[in-house]
Amino acid sequence: MTKVLITGFDPFGGEAINPAFEAVKKIPETIAGATIVKVEVPTVFGAAIDTVVAAMTEHNPDIVICVGQAGGRFEMTPERVAINVDDARIADNKGNQPLNVPVYADGAAAYFSNLPVKAMVEAMKAAGVPAALSNTAGTFVCNHIMYGVLYHINTNPAFAHMKGGFIHVPFLPEQVLTKPNTPSLSLEQMATALTAAVEAAVENTEDINVVAGQTH
Amino acid sequence: MTKVLITGFDPFGGEAINPAFEAVKKIPETIAGATIVKVEVPTVFGAAIDTVVAAMTEHNPDIVICVGQAGGRFEMTPERVAINVDDARIADNKGNQPLNVPVYADGAAAYFSNLPVKAMVEAMKAAGVPAALSNTAGTFVCNHIMYGVLYHINTNPAFAHMKGGFIHVPFLPEQVLTKPNTPSLSLEQMATALTAAVEAAVENTEDINVVAGQTH
Amino acid sequence: MTKVLITGFDPFGGEAINPAFEAVKKIPETIAGATIVKVEVPTVFGAAIDTVVAAMTEHNPDIVICVGQAGGRFEMTPERVAINVDDARIADNKGNQPLNVPVYADGAAAYFSNLPVKAMVEAMKAAGVPAALSNTAGTFVCNHIMYGVLYHINTNPAFAHMKGGFIHVPFLPEQVLTKPNTPSLSLEQMATALTAAVEAAVENTEDINVVAGQTH
Amino acid sequence: MTKVLITGFDPFGGEAINPAFEAVKKIPETIAGATIVKVEVPTVFGAAIDTVVAAMTEHNPDIVICVGQAGGRFEMTPERVAINVDDARIADNKGNQPLNVPVYADGAAAYFSNLPVKAMVEAMKAAGVPAALSNTAGTFVCNHIMYGVLYHINTNPAFAHMKGGFIHVPFLPEQVLTKPNTPSLSLEQMATALTAAVEAAVENTEDINVVAGQTH
Repeated sequence: MTKVLITGFDPFGGEAINPAFEAVKKIPETIAGATIVKVEVPTVFGAAIDTVVAAMTEHNPDIVICVGQAGGRFEMTPERVAINVDDARIADNKGNQPLNVPVYADGAAAYFSNLPVKAMVEAMKAAGVPAALSNTAGTFVCNHIMYGVLYHINTNPAFAHMKGGFIHVPFLPEQVLTKPNTPSLSLEQMATALTAAVEAAVENTEDINVVAGQTH
Repeated sequence: MTKVLITGFDPFGGEAINPAFEAVKKIPETIAGATIVKVEVPTVFGAAIDTVVAAMTEHNPDIVICVGQAGGRFEMTPERVAINVDDARIADNKGNQPLNVPVYADGAAAYFSNLPVKAMVEAMKAAGVPAALSNTAGTFVCNHIMYGVLYHINTNPAFAHMKGGFIHVPFLPEQVLTKPNTPSLSLEQMATALTAAVEAAVENTEDINVVAGQTH
Repeated sequence: MTKVLITGFDPFGGEAINPAFEAVKKIPETIAGATIVKVEVPTVFGAAIDTVVAAMTEHNPDIVICVGQAGGRFEMTPERVAINVDDARIADNKGNQPLNVPVYADGAAAYFSNLPVKAMVEAMKAAGVPAALSNTAGTFVCNHIMYGVLYHINTNPAFAHMKGGFIHVPFLPEQVLTKPNTPSLSLEQMATALTAAVEAAVENTEDINVVAGQTH
Repeated sequence: MTKVLITGFDPFGGEAINPAFEAVKKIPETIAGATIVKVEVPTVFGAAIDTVVAAMTEHNPDIVICVGQAGGRFEMTPERVAINVDDARIADNKGNQPLNVPVYADGAAAYFSNLPVKAMVEAMKAAGVPAALSNTAGTFVCNHIMYGVLYHINTNPAFAHMKGGFIHVPFLPEQVLTKPNTPSLSLEQMATALTAAVEAAVENTEDINVVAGQTH
């Protein structure tokens, strides 16, 4: 039976809530026949990866999807690639602010997600929720955890059968009530979209080959 | 018993649906003790005003709120003022495209909404939906119908007891699936917000005096 | 000989400079045969109007154009209309923050600019600078001074021969160096555009009838 | 004596000009004592890399900077990293539209620019031009050529001494006159910024360690 580990961050950057784990909590316990395991992770360099790797060890999932907030984005955005750099614009929840250092000194420059990211985008849109494929997860803890998951999948034989990736979610409406001209999606939309994305990840062993690139 | 007439436009500008009347259809039949009368209006210069004035005559409402789509806006936006000009960027649904002509040659340069627009904004935000006070309804059929309603309230003694105004709504999610980086609100959010706005309009005989202006 | 009075505001809202008067200072002393009189005005309710009306009395111009900053806008934007309300989102430079009060209790709800605003937009674009017609000057000191100029033109016979209006300018590049994703135009672009706009105002006794409206 | 090879693309995507090579043409022939070699490259997969590699072979530069258009961006944006994927949203100038294929099958997942990208951003801002560090060059010909340059620097010993990277430029004002609410920078601003960036690249053997990351 397929098992999906899905994680969400705790609040950071002065926000009272993080839509990531709120949305994760709202998705079903079973999707497309797969068991869903939900884990909250700290927005802290190092500890974020430690937490998800511990859950990967404990639950031995087939699929690992981390979810994080991208305040200001309009759409649900699966990430195509994670890069080997921690370069924080703000401090994390423990006060760490690494500048331009590698996530893992012996890691590749980048790892591409081996999830069917285009199929996930299409599934979210088919569910009625705005979605797009992103080519940057930033250089903060979101990129960090995505890189960490893929580093361990690519370097630890015990994890070699796993697929891993990351989905960024916009702000919630309640977070933008005092932020003029800032987009949001509702918690229901996020949960609907995440459910559709998990279903696509479970059902597509290969990605689909649709147009989803960016000129820049 | 208070009666509220609320109108929504039909689709225009190449869109298959107009969230305005879709949202209007979803609000309750009774709000804060007031009876709600819902009317769809055509996105056509002249006919739009004729339709709402006919409904004002037939139903004799205490409050008239017209609702229209403002694709690209982030928030629910009650309008402060309607100006005496039709200056269409695109043709209406009958092919009319008036350029820089007055709505009514004998009308005032503008009419301010006499609805409690700031209280309506606050009520929508309190209901969890992004909202802001707008100072322009544009120069198309939305401004046209708002101006028309206020012109008739200000010049026809039979309507002198009425309050009138306009609320712009953003795109729906389904409208932006192929429009990158475009904000939307869900139909549920729009209906929740319109309901809160109607309640505020029914319950506030005077507007509240909060900061809601714009520097430009 | 035609005389043009053009004013620019001093800095406000925490900015070190105001591009409005910086740009005004850079335009020629004579444009299209017209003499240009330049006056700096304070970003203060009341005093702003007093200053420009004093200059109108002293110089007896044919054309009055006030220029102000609209930080966040992308284009040079002549304003179509000024509305009879002071409703400040922030305090002016003397600490005044009027909420929802009329500019003049005996004034019209609004005054349309009697400048050829569409011709001015086209002239600025022909000069290579992004420009658009705006339908709201906000509810702060910019709308206030525009309303004041038009109120006095419409009510004081000594000013009845004058044309008046307002042009908003974006931020300068130096103002957005620490504001991510914020548009700007260079001082040279602003001066080029203002010069073209003044020339259009001098040469067009009637406005042109092009498509320049907004759906909202 | 230091030699800098700087390239710019020809027009694509329906635009009549490409600001990239227009701006490159305007920078001095000598900057900070370095000789500047300017080459126009076609917006064509494969041919773009062939052209720049031929110029690297012919001129043996110390520094290679490719410049391309990122219509819709607000700032001059040096790119941090190029990824090993061609995934075109539109066809290139020869009608090629590769979907999700590697740039080089034997290449790394990504290459980081070895130019002092943060120092280049700071230099452009010090010159008065909005600039920011970008973490995605997209998946079209811009990322393609940047990846190609870095692939050859990393795999061809004859190029091993070179530094390479990419700078995206926004639209020019003349390109946005019919695109509402779209940012631009003037050709003068672009040339000023590119000159400052080249100077920083020549003078900084190591990058500076300032905060320039993104949360997403």
